[in-house]
Amino acid sequence: MGRITRNFAVTRVSVGADGRYFTDTRADTVAVEEPLELKVNNTTLTTTMRTPGDDIELIHGFLHGEGLISSRVDVAEARYCAGTDEQGQNTYNLLEVDLAEGVKAPGPEFIRSVTTTSACGVCGSTSIEQIMDKQAHPIEPVELDPQVVISLPEKLREGQKAFKRTGGIHAAGAFTLDGEPVVIREDIGRHNAADKVIGALLLQDRLPARDLILVMSSRASFELVQKAAMAGFPALVAVSAASSLAVELAREAGMALTGFTRGERFNLYSGALKPVKQLSESACPPAHLDV
Amino acid sequence: MGRITRNFAVTRVSVGADGRYFTDTRADTVAVEEPLELKVNNTTLTTTMRTPGDDIELIHGFLHGEGLISSRVDVAEARYCAGTDEQGQNTYNLLEVDLAEGVKAPGPEFIRSVTTTSACGVCGSTSIEQIMDKQAHPIEPVELDPQVVISLPEKLREGQKAFKRTGGIHAAGAFTLDGEPVVIREDIGRHNAADKVIGALLLQDRLPARDLILVMSSRASFELVQKAAMAGFPALVAVSAASSLAVELAREAGMALTGFTRGERFNLYSGALKPVKQLSESACPPAHLDV
Repeated sequence: MGRITRNFAVTRVSVGADGRYFTDTRADTVAVEEPLELKVNNTTLTTTMRTPGDDIELIHGFLHGEGLISSRVDVAEARYCAGTDEQGQNTYNLLEVDLAEGVKAPGPEFIRSVTTTSACGVCGSTSIEQIMDKQAHPIEPVELDPQVVISLPEKLREGQKAFKRTGGIHAAGAFTLDGEPVVIREDIGRHNAADKVIGALLLQDRLPARDLILVMSSRASFELVQKAAMAGFPALVAVSAASSLAVELAREAGMALTGFTRGERFNLYSGALKPVKQLSESACPPAHLDV
Repeated sequence: MGRITRNFAVTRVSVGADGRYFTDTRADTVAVEEPLELKVNNTTLTTTMRTPGDDIELIHGFLHGEGLISSRVDVAEARYCAGTDEQGQNTYNLLEVDLAEGVKAPGPEFIRSVTTTSACGVCGSTSIEQIMDKQAHPIEPVELDPQVVISLPEKLREGQKAFKRTGGIHAAGAFTLDGEPVVIREDIGRHNAADKVIGALLLQDRLPARDLILVMSSRASFELVQKAAMAGFPALVAVSAASSLAVELAREAGMALTGFTRGERFNLYSGALKPVKQLSESACPPAHLDV
């Protein structure tokens, strides 16, 4: 356990007004994201992406919020699956709950059947494999222009109609590699905003989005990288942080991923940058992340 | 349509160093949140909370992300339900999709059965009624102390272990009405962080949380107010914006709700403030929101 954070090699990029950029690659800490499967009375109820830790509390809170339990005595036992995955490790990603006698088991209206591939809960890499298997459009990697990257959050915000009025709505946008907006959509949910953009491209017969960057006003989670990968985007630019599983999936899929894209700076978690034409002594060649 | 934003009477509160506070109540704009039900080949696939608008794109993007369609020709027809709800209005909250011939319908592993109460899709107020029916612990309203409210975001952050290292993880905390921390938990997902806090309280036999404030590092969505209401919290303090349905549910449930709780200021969307002991000419009596 104790897997709340994880270190990755991350390239910090700082872009000058003349288009040159400076890079600094070092270990950086990101929040861990892993799937947790919940079985109640031997039936899988749900799988959620969460940060490991306090899982017993998490599932008690979940069951209470769904109205399935009202007190701790309603749970006879809650335990991690005792088995191991194919690598012989316990993933700590499957929790089994037995409800106390007399407590009504969740009916079929609660149960979402999910594909599970291992006896003891899926792990992050299994989730990545499942996406790679489903991916209709393999990604053709591109090199990002740092000047374009830092211009995207402001262009996204300019395209938002409702943000100015509410200060609280997410946006997703598809931009060309040169930074021209193609589609911008807003939603209170970042996943919905991404779905709206991808749906708009699909309706315009513009998928796979091989020559487009997906820009998100939010963090980059596993699910967002998944949506971008399914749509064939070679790059995802996020205004806020990236999760561990988002970084891993982006690297596996060959997708460029940036986070904390603010002002003149961003973090490059995956992918490569365009070489600058005019290198100064302090500017660096394009950064490639192999770690 | 055009229901992307909505106006509410909102009280802006500004707290002085001496504990007096100033209020200014006026119409303010929040982002709309409404449930969208998606039926594919006449079977309900999912219900998602979204900001209305671009719904056809949203469901195309969703279906593509799930690997169910790969091009727009895979959808024969997508239409809003033609019927009306009990009030004789079309809610525009139910979309029906017919897949083209030969396109594989989603198997049972995709389908989450959901309770639907009307022939033409649930609307926000139906969702609120469902919560009010399920709510095990009716809320006993409290008066918030503005000085405590503005102290909570900083106290929440102090209790976060992983935020400092990652800059990208949510937190939820239960605090007493005097601002003392009881439980603080972190997770990449704000709903999970709330579930961890509520689960911890349940395991300590501290539900209903009648004398506690739920503090969130995030926005306040319908689902978060729902979780807080189910746990009996009389107040929810959010660092960022609140959605329309969050405000409506909080008002209906008798829960105090603040948003944009930053520095010395916050917005009061629902509930009442403690009277200040020493009123100056410019300070106002406690604000009650009836609109």
